[in-house]
Amino acid sequence: MTARTLQGFMELLPQEQIVFDHMKSVIAHTYEMFGFAPLDTPVLELADVLLSKSGGETEKQIYEFKKGDTDLAMRFDLTVPLAKYVALYNNDLTFPFKRYQIGKVYRGERPQKGRFREFYQCDIDIIDRDELNIVYDAEVLAVIYTVFNKLNLPKFKIYINNRKLLGGFLQSLDIADKTVEVLRLVDKIKKIPEEAFLGELSDLGLAEDKKQSLLKFIKINGLNDEIIAKLEELNIDNDSFVTGLAELKTVITQAQNLGLPAQNIQIDLSITRGLDYYTGTVYETFFDEYPQFGSVCSGGRYDNLSSVFMDKKFPGVGISIGLTRLFDQLRANNLLQFKELTPSKALIVPQDESLIDAAVKLAGKLRNADIAVDVMYRQCKFKKKMEYANKIGVPYLVIIGEEEAKSGLFACKDMITGEQKALNLDELIETLK
Amino acid sequence: MTARTLQGFMELLPQEQIVFDHMKSVIAHTYEMFGFAPLDTPVLELADVLLSKSGGETEKQIYEFKKGDTDLAMRFDLTVPLAKYVALYNNDLTFPFKRYQIGKVYRGERPQKGRFREFYQCDIDIIDRDELNIVYDAEVLAVIYTVFNKLNLPKFKIYINNRKLLGGFLQSLDIADKTVEVLRLVDKIKKIPEEAFLGELSDLGLAEDKKQSLLKFIKINGLNDEIIAKLEELNIDNDSFVTGLAELKTVITQAQNLGLPAQNIQIDLSITRGLDYYTGTVYETFFDEYPQFGSVCSGGRYDNLSSVFMDKKFPGVGISIGLTRLFDQLRANNLLQFKELTPSKALIVPQDESLIDAAVKLAGKLRNADIAVDVMYRQCKFKKKMEYANKIGVPYLVIIGEEEAKSGLFACKDMITGEQKALNLDELIETLK
Repeated sequence: MTARTLQGFMELLPQEQIVFDHMKSVIAHTYEMFGFAPLDTPVLELADVLLSKSGGETEKQIYEFKKGDTDLAMRFDLTVPLAKYVALYNNDLTFPFKRYQIGKVYRGERPQKGRFREFYQCDIDIIDRDELNIVYDAEVLAVIYTVFNKLNLPKFKIYINNRKLLGGFLQSLDIADKTVEVLRLVDKIKKIPEEAFLGELSDLGLAEDKKQSLLKFIKINGLNDEIIAKLEELNIDNDSFVTGLAELKTVITQAQNLGLPAQNIQIDLSITRGLDYYTGTVYETFFDEYPQFGSVCSGGRYDNLSSVFMDKKFPGVGISIGLTRLFDQLRANNLLQFKELTPSKALIVPQDESLIDAAVKLAGKLRNADIAVDVMYRQCKFKKKMEYANKIGVPYLVIIGEEEAKSGLFACKDMITGEQKALNLDELIETLK
Repeated sequence: MTARTLQGFMELLPQEQIVFDHMKSVIAHTYEMFGFAPLDTPVLELADVLLSKSGGETEKQIYEFKKGDTDLAMRFDLTVPLAKYVALYNNDLTFPFKRYQIGKVYRGERPQKGRFREFYQCDIDIIDRDELNIVYDAEVLAVIYTVFNKLNLPKFKIYINNRKLLGGFLQSLDIADKTVEVLRLVDKIKKIPEEAFLGELSDLGLAEDKKQSLLKFIKINGLNDEIIAKLEELNIDNDSFVTGLAELKTVITQAQNLGLPAQNIQIDLSITRGLDYYTGTVYETFFDEYPQFGSVCSGGRYDNLSSVFMDKKFPGVGISIGLTRLFDQLRANNLLQFKELTPSKALIVPQDESLIDAAVKLAGKLRNADIAVDVMYRQCKFKKKMEYANKIGVPYLVIIGEEEAKSGLFACKDMITGEQKALNLDELIETLK
């Protein structure tokens, strides 16, 4: 039997896994800093529950199968399970309900570079009953900023927009009936040439002047305050536009109040997110120097989370980070920082078998002092033991020789500087802390 | 569409999930303290890879299905994926290879109380090439002790044995050919009456004197040193027995050197673990006052991890904690400690809409000081806001009224004592830290 792993399923070596898990825990910790509580839902769900809302494209990608008489499916995102969860437990939940979920999702896509069939999504959502205050949209912006700031990655910008603006603008052009199609098309504008974009607008039946107006509108640029001023100058007075502009202004103002640096947040009227699902604020996040990564964190505001399952209205705002793909892209571009290669702070090396007892005793004491230590119990030449220490990348080596065992001093070697000192137990603990 | 979750799949409310995740992170942290590096393998594998070794009983429980032309299966434990991983990457790994993995596994059992179809396993294994020093078996004992000690659960004991002892004893009785069956039967002795046990031994063709000798052997009891003395007095001189006894003595001695309390570790010659897989040390863990939970952490030493995939020999020692079941049992017996009900340290409550800006600014500053805070932006009566604070169980409330906004002082209420103080920003940060 040949050992194989399925294509499109990421599997990492230990030193990579440590970096991956570090990123995962920075994200989780940041989500908690903003008051989000953890949630964990099953990977498997009843197929009809999971597919209640999805269209044909999603359905083709689903891992779906029968066990006995039951149709099962593996989750393809964390949003449908959240909708199910809120529908099922809303009487026991406290609203606004703020949850984060970090888990694997499954899409049986044709495997290709940078596409995974199993990947981590790291989601937050804030859900309320009936209405959700717009300030939460600014909080979500702060979460995105804080996560990417703490991850210590290349320079990034969060692009925001409000779908009500474009909706209102299309109303003012008298083409509100084309809103869904136009928003979906605008979402593609950065990926296709301008002529192709205009051509597709023609296909939708838009007249030349409206096409140009639209193009001009989504190209409005400048600093955030300038864009807002330009939008105000348009004097469009339908409800959708007016509400959208007010919401956008609040989000920008509250982002400032939250202390977010202006250079990390940019209004971009061409950001729409393709999904009909979103109804207000939308977010995308790009690295300034790596636009080819695509958006590494996206999301937005929606009017109703659980309409498939319930009559009650649950508006929300949320985002998702596709961690597996992000990690893969960072790795491919040598942007990962491999600081810690092992969870151990020190490796204890007894020089020969007679010194194992002393090594074991020391390990017990150091771990009692909350220091992560590994011990090399394998019987081999000292050189081999040093090779092991170098390979696992441990920061300190504590060598137990006969002298050390007698004197009660331990030879502690800093593996980066190469410096070696004889330390007693207290000094050793202090050095390793 | 009615929202439903599949039977046998655990789904928790936020306050329960926080406790679950806390347990999970104590386990992960402890594993790292002992130098184990994280590993994450796919939930889905090729069916032939996963089922290469399993027998009929396992196979029936597997979630197995076809996607296109590929036979897929969901993992049913973390051991087979580890065997595959070591076979696949052994040239890139450093040995002894110490990994931990915490992840969900799947068994399509008939759902019944306390049985889950999706559950977390929390595994560690130490793998070496050709030979693995016996002292690692004591380290594993220390890991089990430290995990359960840190989890702050009811009193527990780790029961250990070495399968070579019973194997050697059966050799000395001239019934070595029945070893597999007898060990499997001994594994059941605590679950069936003694007569039934003796009856099944008769079915295996054991003569009366041998049955009684065996019963007497597995009932040897006392303090660990006394049991070892009694085993030595038996003067059994075959290799298996002599090696087993020496290994057991080393594990007990090194457990003492590691500083483990004697009352938490008990030699029990009736512990065998049913699986043929184990070849030396075996572990089981029971709560003193809740034996009905069964073993909450089990494992042992094996001669070869990856024989299905490779010719090379990789001996190892490992354990597994079935976290989902453990959590479920603790919950059913009111043994969970719900200390923190929300990740937030404080909830900021602006008294009315005009004070939202001040609340937002304070939230930004507190989070910059690494304090997890939530803000209540929902517009409702103050009483409702207090209800929310009580429901999410946040330790501190920071109220922003008009006076506070003017004075630069914040009303900080300790939700446990009810005490309220007016604090400036620095004092507030200090209180919440």
